[in-house]
Amino acid sequence: MKNFTQFESLALGQELIDLAKSYKNDSRKDISKGIGKRVGCIFLNPSLRTRVSTQIAAQNLGMEPIVLNMDKEGWALEMKDGEVMNKGTVEHIKDAAGVLGTYFDVLAIRAFPTLTQKNEDTEDFVLNQFIRHSGIPIVSLESAIRHPLQSLADMITMKENTPSGKRPKVVLTWAPHIKAIPHAVANSFSEWALGMEYDLTITHPEGYELDEKFTKGATLEYDQSKALQDADFVYVKNWSSFNDYGKIHSTDPSWMLTEAHLSKAPDAKVMHCLPVRRNLELSDEILDSDRSLVQRQAENRIYAAQAVLSKIIG
Amino acid sequence: MKNFTQFESLALGQELIDLAKSYKNDSRKDISKGIGKRVGCIFLNPSLRTRVSTQIAAQNLGMEPIVLNMDKEGWALEMKDGEVMNKGTVEHIKDAAGVLGTYFDVLAIRAFPTLTQKNEDTEDFVLNQFIRHSGIPIVSLESAIRHPLQSLADMITMKENTPSGKRPKVVLTWAPHIKAIPHAVANSFSEWALGMEYDLTITHPEGYELDEKFTKGATLEYDQSKALQDADFVYVKNWSSFNDYGKIHSTDPSWMLTEAHLSKAPDAKVMHCLPVRRNLELSDEILDSDRSLVQRQAENRIYAAQAVLSKIIG
Amino acid sequence: MKNFTQFESLALGQELIDLAKSYKNDSRKDISKGIGKRVGCIFLNPSLRTRVSTQIAAQNLGMEPIVLNMDKEGWALEMKDGEVMNKGTVEHIKDAAGVLGTYFDVLAIRAFPTLTQKNEDTEDFVLNQFIRHSGIPIVSLESAIRHPLQSLADMITMKENTPSGKRPKVVLTWAPHIKAIPHAVANSFSEWALGMEYDLTITHPEGYELDEKFTKGATLEYDQSKALQDADFVYVKNWSSFNDYGKIHSTDPSWMLTEAHLSKAPDAKVMHCLPVRRNLELSDEILDSDRSLVQRQAENRIYAAQAVLSKIIG
Repeated sequence: MKNFTQFESLALGQELIDLAKSYKNDSRKDISKGIGKRVGCIFLNPSLRTRVSTQIAAQNLGMEPIVLNMDKEGWALEMKDGEVMNKGTVEHIKDAAGVLGTYFDVLAIRAFPTLTQKNEDTEDFVLNQFIRHSGIPIVSLESAIRHPLQSLADMITMKENTPSGKRPKVVLTWAPHIKAIPHAVANSFSEWALGMEYDLTITHPEGYELDEKFTKGATLEYDQSKALQDADFVYVKNWSSFNDYGKIHSTDPSWMLTEAHLSKAPDAKVMHCLPVRRNLELSDEILDSDRSLVQRQAENRIYAAQAVLSKIIG
Repeated sequence: MKNFTQFESLALGQELIDLAKSYKNDSRKDISKGIGKRVGCIFLNPSLRTRVSTQIAAQNLGMEPIVLNMDKEGWALEMKDGEVMNKGTVEHIKDAAGVLGTYFDVLAIRAFPTLTQKNEDTEDFVLNQFIRHSGIPIVSLESAIRHPLQSLADMITMKENTPSGKRPKVVLTWAPHIKAIPHAVANSFSEWALGMEYDLTITHPEGYELDEKFTKGATLEYDQSKALQDADFVYVKNWSSFNDYGKIHSTDPSWMLTEAHLSKAPDAKVMHCLPVRRNLELSDEILDSDRSLVQRQAENRIYAAQAVLSKIIG
Repeated sequence: MKNFTQFESLALGQELIDLAKSYKNDSRKDISKGIGKRVGCIFLNPSLRTRVSTQIAAQNLGMEPIVLNMDKEGWALEMKDGEVMNKGTVEHIKDAAGVLGTYFDVLAIRAFPTLTQKNEDTEDFVLNQFIRHSGIPIVSLESAIRHPLQSLADMITMKENTPSGKRPKVVLTWAPHIKAIPHAVANSFSEWALGMEYDLTITHPEGYELDEKFTKGATLEYDQSKALQDADFVYVKNWSSFNDYGKIHSTDPSWMLTEAHLSKAPDAKVMHCLPVRRNLELSDEILDSDRSLVQRQAENRIYAAQAVLSKIIG
């Protein structure tokens, strides 16, 4: 495995889940594996969980993580080739990525979409510029279109909460929000759930269809109540429109998941990648109940990142 | 000791002072004690000394410190239960503290008062929300009403500068400032000095009375010159009004401590928690003289934090 | 060697280059040398390469680096002695440097010039205040007038690319820019290239003469094309006027280095300290060609810093 930016195969997914679970059981068992190796964590956008869990994962392997909050530190990168750099950008991605490639053994990058330049976003332009120019392995800490470490943590969490032999019903449901939110978590969750051969239903108001590249094989059901019936796992997430790119079409509060929505799914576990806006996306009653797996998902971010870094450094 | 947020007892105070002094003598003697343990240092407000001294203290114990400048990183936490989060806050303290509780072994938190919401501040609302929701030991790096690591460092410094057998006269004197400053350092200094059984006099202009919860047992003297007479230690600090909450009543420059103020306290040592505004709170002549203990106090912040972390991780 | 702030001697320069090359060959050979020692990296201005390369250099020696982005963290220092601090500055350099001197074994400081206060800048006032008040060794991470770690990395890079026995022709050429840029890199490069006994020619439009303190011994040639003839190394850099302090006199695009400029220097290697504004200072064709040494210079920043820290901690 050179880069970790998306779902690759059922076999690799299973291997990473097993490795992550072994680290959860004994986090420092490979403490010597990464000695003398460095991971540079480049944030072009803010992060709490991702930053801390990646640092911890690296330290658990004996690696030295160094964080660069490029968004905060005012280091505006030029991403387009051939530009005359006589405006706001101070350094070209070619040069910055090249230097980082000589400083680190692995680069972990967070680069959100613009939500205005659809072509650039769907090509995952910024992430791919880092891959192109750094010359070293790249781990996505959420790109314009995918959030694979979150999805790996989600798969670990579902596995931990599934009786062996069962093929659970998984529902990804859209939730209201006040801001235009990227598609990365929803795309990746769908890509991984389908890749790991879960029975996946996606439900959202009309106009919120995700890019089919990620959802092919899932059942699409516009009636949320029908979709939720008999669900084992309900993944709650907002996203903006993909077809009418980056726009908010509905903030219909009836889509917020509450206990009443789960009357026909009595055993459903509820998931969210966090941060969650309480009582807008998801009700307090659910988040504070035993249904909620959100803290377990967050905890599993450490072991997902640790498995990925471990696999990359060999 | 689970949490470290305030003065607890003379016995514990003495134990922490002795432990801190032993670390000052040999900072790395417990370098293996914290191996594999992590302290998350959460700053809701800026910090220089506190951040660095806590990182060093943790490293001296073999712990891994990770700093989160939440104030700078734009991660606005919702503190109130039951809110519909459809405005500026992006994550609820319940969820954020819960996640941090799964990532770290100890959380160290800085959360200044609002100086406008008196009830919320005097309940130490934000600190207590972290205690309530993180599930792990909490160290205060200055809360709305207390700054116990500063006070512990101050007690170490006074102990180092007191001939054995003597009970020194300690004076806490208000000083002018141009901004509305919290009460935390003054409250804590009073609480600890009284708890450690020093003879404490507090002096300030009328209208600057501190919360009696912290000062009961001290002598209150409005005449600064009378208060300073025969002082062994003079602790200089500004604070805003507590009764007329968060307001500035006086900036009377005659309250700034100078050599002339100490004519009847020839041997007095002068203390300040830093940062100090020179020639506004305290004169250059004092800060640059042998009377000043401010650098020693700052240095002892390392060993105060190291003693506290050491005691918490057991 | 106590401080590292400028070129000292040919012998020391040679020793540092050799030590750096030995670390480049085996970066962790002195991994135990700095155990228990700390370097505080104080940034009064932004940094990417310098921050990361210094952290890595320290870690390669077993030292613990702690970064303080004082510019970002809103900790405005008062630099002038005797001021009444009743305005924007929150702490005096005397006190801040004194405390940092008790917390660290070495301080590494970045302090850019004002480009408006010529006397203060040319005295390197801020760096010297840290030297005066910290009481511990100081490493310059670029001061108002010098950038010695960059120059050391540049000398390593030239040495690596020079056939033994040859005395290469080195040209420092001014390049256009849209902002007023400090003189530090140009000054230091000249100081070190002359100190290491290279044959140095400096070329720039009239009005861009550097401070003679740094350039005495170099050939000054206003005709860029004449200067570049038979060059072995061409160092490209913008700077603002020194005589008409901090002003931009020319942004003449014909001074941007392109392949056409190097028609009479077919073997010239091209250098730049980065970040470089592509197609404003230097053309893509050069930066993307084998002529370019810019990635090697950046990589050598690690080993330059490692050699300096190693020498300082003895």
